Amino acid sequence: MQNKEIRLASRPTGLPAIENFQFVDTETPPLGEGEVLLRSLYISVDPYLRGRMREGKSYVAPFELGQVIESGGVGEVVESRSATFKPGDIVSGYLGWRLYNVAPDQQLMRTIPGVSPSTALGVLGMPGLTAYFGLLDIGKPKEGETVVVSGAAGAVGMTVAQIAKIQGCRVVGIAGSDEKNRYLRDELGVDATINYKTTKDMFSALKEACPGGIDVYFDNVGGPVSDAVYPLINDRARVVICGQISIYNSDKLDVGLRPQPFVLIHSALIQGFIITQYADGVAHLAQWFTGGQPKHAETIVDGFENTPKAFIALFSGENLGKQIVKC
Amino acid sequence: MQNKEIRLASRPTGLPAIENFQFVDTETPPLGEGEVLLRSLYISVDPYLRGRMREGKSYVAPFELGQVIESGGVGEVVESRSATFKPGDIVSGYLGWRLYNVAPDQQLMRTIPGVSPSTALGVLGMPGLTAYFGLLDIGKPKEGETVVVSGAAGAVGMTVAQIAKIQGCRVVGIAGSDEKNRYLRDELGVDATINYKTTKDMFSALKEACPGGIDVYFDNVGGPVSDAVYPLINDRARVVICGQISIYNSDKLDVGLRPQPFVLIHSALIQGFIITQYADGVAHLAQWFTGGQPKHAETIVDGFENTPKAFIALFSGENLGKQIVKC
Repeated sequence: MQNKEIRLASRPTGLPAIENFQFVDTETPPLGEGEVLLRSLYISVDPYLRGRMREGKSYVAPFELGQVIESGGVGEVVESRSATFKPGDIVSGYLGWRLYNVAPDQQLMRTIPGVSPSTALGVLGMPGLTAYFGLLDIGKPKEGETVVVSGAAGAVGMTVAQIAKIQGCRVVGIAGSDEKNRYLRDELGVDATINYKTTKDMFSALKEACPGGIDVYFDNVGGPVSDAVYPLINDRARVVICGQISIYNSDKLDVGLRPQPFVLIHSALIQGFIITQYADGVAHLAQWFTGGQPKHAETIVDGFENTPKAFIALFSGENLGKQIVKC
Repeated sequence: MQNKEIRLASRPTGLPAIENFQFVDTETPPLGEGEVLLRSLYISVDPYLRGRMREGKSYVAPFELGQVIESGGVGEVVESRSATFKPGDIVSGYLGWRLYNVAPDQQLMRTIPGVSPSTALGVLGMPGLTAYFGLLDIGKPKEGETVVVSGAAGAVGMTVAQIAKIQGCRVVGIAGSDEKNRYLRDELGVDATINYKTTKDMFSALKEACPGGIDVYFDNVGGPVSDAVYPLINDRARVVICGQISIYNSDKLDVGLRPQPFVLIHSALIQGFIITQYADGVAHLAQWFTGGQPKHAETIVDGFENTPKAFIALFSGENLGKQIVKC
């Protein structure tokens, strides 16, 4: 069958550009035993993919030049040589940026019925699980504690904010527009918000928003925004390093405030992680979700051909919630 | 009884100076029930005391101006109204920088017989326990892993190095003189050493010394020395923040390499701590010690009147092992 895919044409320098991507006409290969042919419904674009476009070691192997880009995707089964899935089934998995993907059934999961299948890329997928395990396993928020979330209006951040509220915490969200912050306060019940783009003195703003200091910092951004957090951490504070989007487009070493002196005087912890335990988290999140918690927002970009553009837009922070391409 | 004590006369700016300390003639107070009068034998001078000379919150309350300086000390009981101790007993505790201290028996511990009582201030005291719990509880070194220790020739560092060797690790020590490094290699069996004062490219030197990357970094110093470590950490590396002596004399925010990006891509951990569990550690260390492990070194400065000078000398790193004043 006639197909189209998006390959890495060249490695980005700084902010990725349309020219770094190449659209190629291809044919779908014949199905092997246990495989299905999927028509793409939704494609996830995620900040961490920037790391895979770079040469050298990160927590996921880099994309090769000329390789199809891969990320989370949702598709409809249109042909099947699998005993598990039949045509019409909606599944999610790690897929190529293609109109059609051929994939082995073992790498696919049925989406949860009754909710939009796109949530498999957001609140009920990798970003939701990242929030769930990062906050609960590393952040370990306790009732009454203050939790600060940067990138709070992104897919991960807004799930973190809601889980922290469920845990009985004071939640302070940092995001890049007044509109996002209104959403965080009015829709998600976040206690206080800071617009880092319009706030001149982040330290004073945070100090005012966190009169009892900061017990948990869920960091999606790094850089100067995070520099304002460390001087306010409490004894035994936990900092969850989930993302550092402020530096993903930089090739220089990241210079700024060293947090180690604050770690020293407060017996604090800074920790990174990769989500591994999948099943439990999805079940618990789905339970909260069908019970009305957590809320989610999606920014849906229309058209397969706009996938690279949707990815690039992540770095100007235009999305509210999960950024997704609808094919 | 005629006494002499050393008080904080003024708060240091930068490197502490003799003028920040004041010698005052006093009288010992009469003994209360359960108290003993101690003649000072050894006084511990420790880098962390610099933090207590600063105004504002740290993990220990600041010294007030005019207050006697306090630190670990070893003394001989010369008078007793305690059922626990009799004249002639040698005890350790948190004591004032005085020729004689009056102290309640509950705050004192008998020193371990058969070894120099000064070890209660070093390898069998706070520095030894700091090494023990910091390395084992946070660093969690596994056989075959690479452990890097900064400030490796200090009281804490050389205990860390030996415990890491006992755990079957490759140990790389960073210290400030060739003589210290010879001691680390020849006496303690450290696998490789780096003299940070004469090494121009710390990163390359570390890379060469750690061909398998770095699994555990026990950090006593912070600053540029530590900046060279983070780019070399392995997945799931553990960084123990024990001290940051490079900035203790600075009043500025600490600017340099932000380690968070490396924490992110390696799912690493950076953690500070305070030792709390006392008894177990001392017993285990004493057991290793009387069995020949760990070795220790002391730099002994003679004379109570030289206590401030011995403290100040810590920041030029002249001491090999525990810096102690002999009264």
